[in-house]
Amino acid sequence: MEEASNRRKFLSVSALAGVLSACGGGKETAVEDEGPSRLGRPVSAYGERSAHVKLARAFRDSANPEAAASFTPLQDLDGIITPASLHFERHHAGVPQIDPEKHELLLHGMVDRPLMFTLADLRRLPSESHVYFIECSGNSGGEWGAKTTPDPQRGFGLASCSEWTGVPLRTLLEEAGVKPGASWVIAEGNDACRMMRSIPMAKAMDDILVAYSQNGEPLRPEQGFPLRLVVPGWEGNINVKWLRVLKVADQPYMAKDETSKYTDLMPDGKARIFTFVMEAKSIITFPAGGRKLSGPGLYEITGLAWSGRGRIEKVEVSTDGGKSWTAARLQEPRHRIAFTRFRLPWRWDGGEAMLQSRCTDESGYVQPSKEELVAARGTGSNYHFNGIKPWKISADGSVTNVDA
Amino acid sequence: MEEASNRRKFLSVSALAGVLSACGGGKETAVEDEGPSRLGRPVSAYGERSAHVKLARAFRDSANPEAAASFTPLQDLDGIITPASLHFERHHAGVPQIDPEKHELLLHGMVDRPLMFTLADLRRLPSESHVYFIECSGNSGGEWGAKTTPDPQRGFGLASCSEWTGVPLRTLLEEAGVKPGASWVIAEGNDACRMMRSIPMAKAMDDILVAYSQNGEPLRPEQGFPLRLVVPGWEGNINVKWLRVLKVADQPYMAKDETSKYTDLMPDGKARIFTFVMEAKSIITFPAGGRKLSGPGLYEITGLAWSGRGRIEKVEVSTDGGKSWTAARLQEPRHRIAFTRFRLPWRWDGGEAMLQSRCTDESGYVQPSKEELVAARGTGSNYHFNGIKPWKISADGSVTNVDA
Repeated sequence: MEEASNRRKFLSVSALAGVLSACGGGKETAVEDEGPSRLGRPVSAYGERSAHVKLARAFRDSANPEAAASFTPLQDLDGIITPASLHFERHHAGVPQIDPEKHELLLHGMVDRPLMFTLADLRRLPSESHVYFIECSGNSGGEWGAKTTPDPQRGFGLASCSEWTGVPLRTLLEEAGVKPGASWVIAEGNDACRMMRSIPMAKAMDDILVAYSQNGEPLRPEQGFPLRLVVPGWEGNINVKWLRVLKVADQPYMAKDETSKYTDLMPDGKARIFTFVMEAKSIITFPAGGRKLSGPGLYEITGLAWSGRGRIEKVEVSTDGGKSWTAARLQEPRHRIAFTRFRLPWRWDGGEAMLQSRCTDESGYVQPSKEELVAARGTGSNYHFNGIKPWKISADGSVTNVDA
Repeated sequence: MEEASNRRKFLSVSALAGVLSACGGGKETAVEDEGPSRLGRPVSAYGERSAHVKLARAFRDSANPEAAASFTPLQDLDGIITPASLHFERHHAGVPQIDPEKHELLLHGMVDRPLMFTLADLRRLPSESHVYFIECSGNSGGEWGAKTTPDPQRGFGLASCSEWTGVPLRTLLEEAGVKPGASWVIAEGNDACRMMRSIPMAKAMDDILVAYSQNGEPLRPEQGFPLRLVVPGWEGNINVKWLRVLKVADQPYMAKDETSKYTDLMPDGKARIFTFVMEAKSIITFPAGGRKLSGPGLYEITGLAWSGRGRIEKVEVSTDGGKSWTAARLQEPRHRIAFTRFRLPWRWDGGEAMLQSRCTDESGYVQPSKEELVAARGTGSNYHFNGIKPWKISADGSVTNVDA
């Protein structure tokens, strides 16, 4: 380009104005970047990240790291797709290492024809791909009480979003022939705890996938390789990983993880059970807890909204603690039951501010405030927290969780 | 589930019928899978593939692996998203290793205010995410002549599809202030060859992104970390990687890679130049060259279609060498300028068959046959091959490239 010698001259006359100067963009100082003087690295079979990129799932050191969770760094990701390597984890007995050549799926119980499927069998059947979020029902559990977390990752990162491919469960059930009176399907995983969940037949015949692929590739081990259920919009652990058995029955199995766990204790001492649907929820991922704004000026507020009931229709953002709300721009196309990215330009005046988002889904459901949620359900549950999340901006630019 | 002892009994009475038996699904033999007897692996910071999954980009051993290409294994991927680790590569001087803290983007030339941007500057600006394919204009170049390749990966794998996030180039140009008479933007990369391409101003002000993210994560080094242009629908190498300079000008730069290369030699000895748009193209990825069908029965034909002119409106599939065509099912939602997955059930009778796909985009453009393409353009070019690709099924089930 023969401009290197002219660069300093060009820049010495530069005057920054408008949107960029307002947000601190651009620089008056020229950098003498001579660029690379030799060939770079060759092509490779399977790419890796730059050594400068350190994004990681967060997790606590624990005496039982096999029965643990790791959290997606929502505040550091863009768009709506979560890379498989950063998809959240929640395991109850660790990640089994399965040879796909030896893995089979048994479909039995109240069916005319019990069937056993290899991976190759399933891959020959008609398939579908959909972008869906999966969220652990314990996501944001700390927000119910005083144990709230400082940033989006630790507080909201048990939710991720991928393109899943597999065979509709309906296809397998129709082939096996469901007997009259059958009303539930019991799914069992091939982990050491035999994770087991009961699924109503109506959902099983609707949109569930027996999935073998995530974001184009075979499932990762921690996402259930080689097979998992993807149960759109329903709580994470019913999306049974390392799927090995489907049993058709006329009642739920009342397994450990749908009785003593994954039920919601109400103020009156009763427990809600089979609270499958993950209700509409949104979170501002920038500016959010753990960040520090460098100074007044223009910023783009951005975040994610999702609903187990379908499409996100609206996200409103408040920067004044909920007194006024402005509709954010939604990234198109908006998939059903998937992360929806929202964005809103915001000029920070350097004073204290309180940022929060509130979403509405296609069913008309509006994300509640924490106060509304607690009034309805108390604080006895660890599950299904979807309250509005305020982040506080202090005059020094630091952003904190007001409840932390 | 207490069914282990019953499994053999259930399966001994199983009778396979309907769609699954027709396609070989299901098995009569029970497998005594005792499952894991101990805890699996713990949670991890950044996930890796199962050791059983070997999908890889293909490339030739070469004396100059820095000036080479690697091909996406299209026949082994599902859905429309290409994992970043498997996105195709085409480098002219290798992959530079860049420290993002030191990288800057200069915007100068015919502008009112030359500007220099750090990554942090760009990340503060309003951003967009879109799912776009990128295709090397040399993809399928061998198909022009007798050098055709045996499988989808080697023949068509210089095309991949991702969710890209970045700042509209328009935003930067508007901030710098484009001077009257300016009509081109010259983009330059920070690789050792200083890859440089000229872009008409109308496109620069339309939908180009200065991208910093792919599939949620920061760009991979081989995709231009920390910055690349994403020029929707235009040939791969104008999507300049490791972007360091944008110069506004009143004429194209006539760089090496838009004159001696990336131009199309016509039969009359003239060369087409600035043939930017990648025209509508489709490829059956299963059954395709390199596969062997295990026997007659039901299969799902599937593949990918894409067009630089917008949305794919129709994909037709022929299984009889082009005598008859059937509309395939298209995966929704269909993004503009992105891979569109198509699927069609097909019952193979065990005889010879010829499979091919033909797509139509929203502009009404119909993918041509190889004969039509050669009649119009001859065989003097290595670029912009988008002809219909037939795969031959032999009676033994093997699938081959008829032109190979």
